[in-house]
Amino acid sequence: MEIDPLQVSSKEVYFAMTATIVPRPIAWVSTMSSEGTLNLAPFSFFTGVSSKPPTIVFCLGNRPDGTPKDTLNNIEARGEFVVNVVHEPMAQAMVHTSAPFAPGVSEFERAGLDTSPSTRITVPRVKGSPVSYECTLNQVVELSSGGAITSRMVIGNIVYMHIQDAVLDERGRVDVHKLRPVCRLGGKAYAMLDESFEIPHPKL
Amino acid sequence: MEIDPLQVSSKEVYFAMTATIVPRPIAWVSTMSSEGTLNLAPFSFFTGVSSKPPTIVFCLGNRPDGTPKDTLNNIEARGEFVVNVVHEPMAQAMVHTSAPFAPGVSEFERAGLDTSPSTRITVPRVKGSPVSYECTLNQVVELSSGGAITSRMVIGNIVYMHIQDAVLDERGRVDVHKLRPVCRLGGKAYAMLDESFEIPHPKL
Repeated sequence: MEIDPLQVSSKEVYFAMTATIVPRPIAWVSTMSSEGTLNLAPFSFFTGVSSKPPTIVFCLGNRPDGTPKDTLNNIEARGEFVVNVVHEPMAQAMVHTSAPFAPGVSEFERAGLDTSPSTRITVPRVKGSPVSYECTLNQVVELSSGGAITSRMVIGNIVYMHIQDAVLDERGRVDVHKLRPVCRLGGKAYAMLDESFEIPHPKL
Repeated sequence: MEIDPLQVSSKEVYFAMTATIVPRPIAWVSTMSSEGTLNLAPFSFFTGVSSKPPTIVFCLGNRPDGTPKDTLNNIEARGEFVVNVVHEPMAQAMVHTSAPFAPGVSEFERAGLDTSPSTRITVPRVKGSPVSYECTLNQVVELSSGGAITSRMVIGNIVYMHIQDAVLDERGRVDVHKLRPVCRLGGKAYAMLDESFEIPHPKL
């Protein structure tokens, strides 16, 4: 199959991208509006950027009506957000928070989730999430199509990290089989990881 | 475990990030120098950005001596690159191409890989890769630490996509269990996906 993005709909490009850039880790992003309403939403166009400086990025489009999502508005208002890692017991709640609730509604309440305070920023974490990254806004890279901003990359400075002791091995290192991250695929599909294996670093 | 990035080494931050932002898809990036030497290297700080405009991003640091990697030099020289998807049979070859070969050396030759021509750009694909994204350079976002550029985000416009028919199901959609993507974890660790499952989209 060959796809020329100029010849097909953006929906078709989206399906192809989300089905082939796999598996994707999930950033469950908590934010707070200027009025103090909490928001929580999952994004899987997400990755680390760099450890020096400690940096993370996630990407988001607009709402169906073309206006920015609450997550972006909140981050621009406060300059802060938390990226929470989603493990297996939280999969259903995570998907629940992807519903298009109205701006005044807290996804934390709707999904039956509690908050944990952050250490360096005012925006709280998801209580029970195995890993949380407290971030301040570095910059937003805007992408346009047809003269309008259609997508944005939110680049965050990592200012503090929380890792639950329950996901560490006896030597204090993260054990992915204790972490049990939910892996994002295309459409409604998710997966868990099979057994991991090692491939030695190459030598010249 | 709590990590204050200002209080630990960037290596420790790197280990924490690569162990908790998991699993990561792998961008196996082919490029060509201005002299025509091919380069191929894997990067897992990689994700999709947007389908409108069709956009992809991967991130890379410097070589150990602080100079930019060949991949970046080549992309800046030609404004083109290909992101190839790594499936199970190519895992060993992919890791082989992560070795720090000298600039004049082609990782394709060293790893016993062949090229396939691209459709819209001059940089070739990896022959046998199940999915390839032909990209032109949109922009490079530079990140600095201590007054020097330490990391870069390479943002690419997707200008053409190839998907092998062998990874499609009978309805012409990508089947992740035929694709068999190699998932990047921390350190030397990789994993394959377990069975996938669906979670219905939420309703309000």
